[in-house]
Amino acid sequence: MNAAGADSGTPPFRLGVLVSGSGSNLQSIIDKLHNGPANIGIAVVVSDNNKAKGLMRAAEAGIPTAVFSMIDFDDRVEHDRAMAAELKRHEVDLVVLAGYMLLVTPGLLDSFPYKVINLHPALLPAFPGASPIEDTMDYGARITGVTVHFVDEGADTGPIILQEAVEIKYNDTVESLRGRIHEVEHRILPRAIELIASGRVRFDEENPRRVIVDEDRP
Amino acid sequence: MNAAGADSGTPPFRLGVLVSGSGSNLQSIIDKLHNGPANIGIAVVVSDNNKAKGLMRAAEAGIPTAVFSMIDFDDRVEHDRAMAAELKRHEVDLVVLAGYMLLVTPGLLDSFPYKVINLHPALLPAFPGASPIEDTMDYGARITGVTVHFVDEGADTGPIILQEAVEIKYNDTVESLRGRIHEVEHRILPRAIELIASGRVRFDEENPRRVIVDEDRP
Repeated sequence: MNAAGADSGTPPFRLGVLVSGSGSNLQSIIDKLHNGPANIGIAVVVSDNNKAKGLMRAAEAGIPTAVFSMIDFDDRVEHDRAMAAELKRHEVDLVVLAGYMLLVTPGLLDSFPYKVINLHPALLPAFPGASPIEDTMDYGARITGVTVHFVDEGADTGPIILQEAVEIKYNDTVESLRGRIHEVEHRILPRAIELIASGRVRFDEENPRRVIVDEDRP
Repeated sequence: MNAAGADSGTPPFRLGVLVSGSGSNLQSIIDKLHNGPANIGIAVVVSDNNKAKGLMRAAEAGIPTAVFSMIDFDDRVEHDRAMAAELKRHEVDLVVLAGYMLLVTPGLLDSFPYKVINLHPALLPAFPGASPIEDTMDYGARITGVTVHFVDEGADTGPIILQEAVEIKYNDTVESLRGRIHEVEHRILPRAIELIASGRVRFDEENPRRVIVDEDRP
């Protein structure tokens, strides 16, 4: 029975997933992890956008959803505090930004210290910001990739958990490159979650910016 | 006789190589290209440092050398103008910075527009500057690499010709990572020179920051 997740007796590792748009990375977590053998479950999907397709994906998978629109709050910290309270109510162990477009503030981070992770479609610290794939192509880089990192108060500056390189082809367009980057995202975001859930991710004691992953353990 | 370089009748493509230190990248050019079948020859090796081991490597290979110490010039532009005159005297087609530690100025670049290339041990635009391998390790990046780029007046900002990724291991030290980066450098710097010498490197007309390499041609 140990592989049966919620039936195993061990409470599942509970995710809160934040989405703003199509939620294809949410879908990869649903397909690869949700209620699977790794004993990980998505407890709630939260969006700042009540039209996010990710909310429909969650509903189809029977996952509770919540919407926190910026327009309903005085500022971002208040918005994030309300969101954090909802995530706490669902007893979330890890918050996953999966195509969530707002910068998060201490209103969320203070409630989930080093328990918020983000996916960025570039090899940080190269090409931070909101249009990394376009910026990479404009710069003329030959190698880019995907980064999964812990979120801190900076923009795309937190400690890196996993990175994977993607080669840029001379005939690539933004769209063709985005397609190959998405494939990598859909592989390494679930992988990073699985590594964290199984306790295989820790910080280097000598340099807390360096994240060590015990990859070899099962 | 066409493969015999200088004997083929076509004048060789002439390199000027600038070194400051050990010159291991100069050695890779000597070993892989100098007077070889690609009809490329090193015309002169120039250093800012009369103790650079690269000068000895050049002498052993029978290549002329010249030293331009900063102390003999009023400023960097004057220094670079004198160096450019020496490179012109040797009828250099391409200037290769191979572990050359000074920033180059218009004193050199104006005489060799888009004919100066540099090797940088990181995936630019990530980790520019003088200690990229240390900076990469301190940041906790999981992927780094090597960049060969045209030199412009910025520091490590010019159009990228080739990049290759190098994975960082959890047990890497600066020295072990440097070793694997050197292996890549010794492969892609000669490769970039060969591509330029054979006319297979051009700028994208729509975006001159993007360099296009016709890799498939022999």
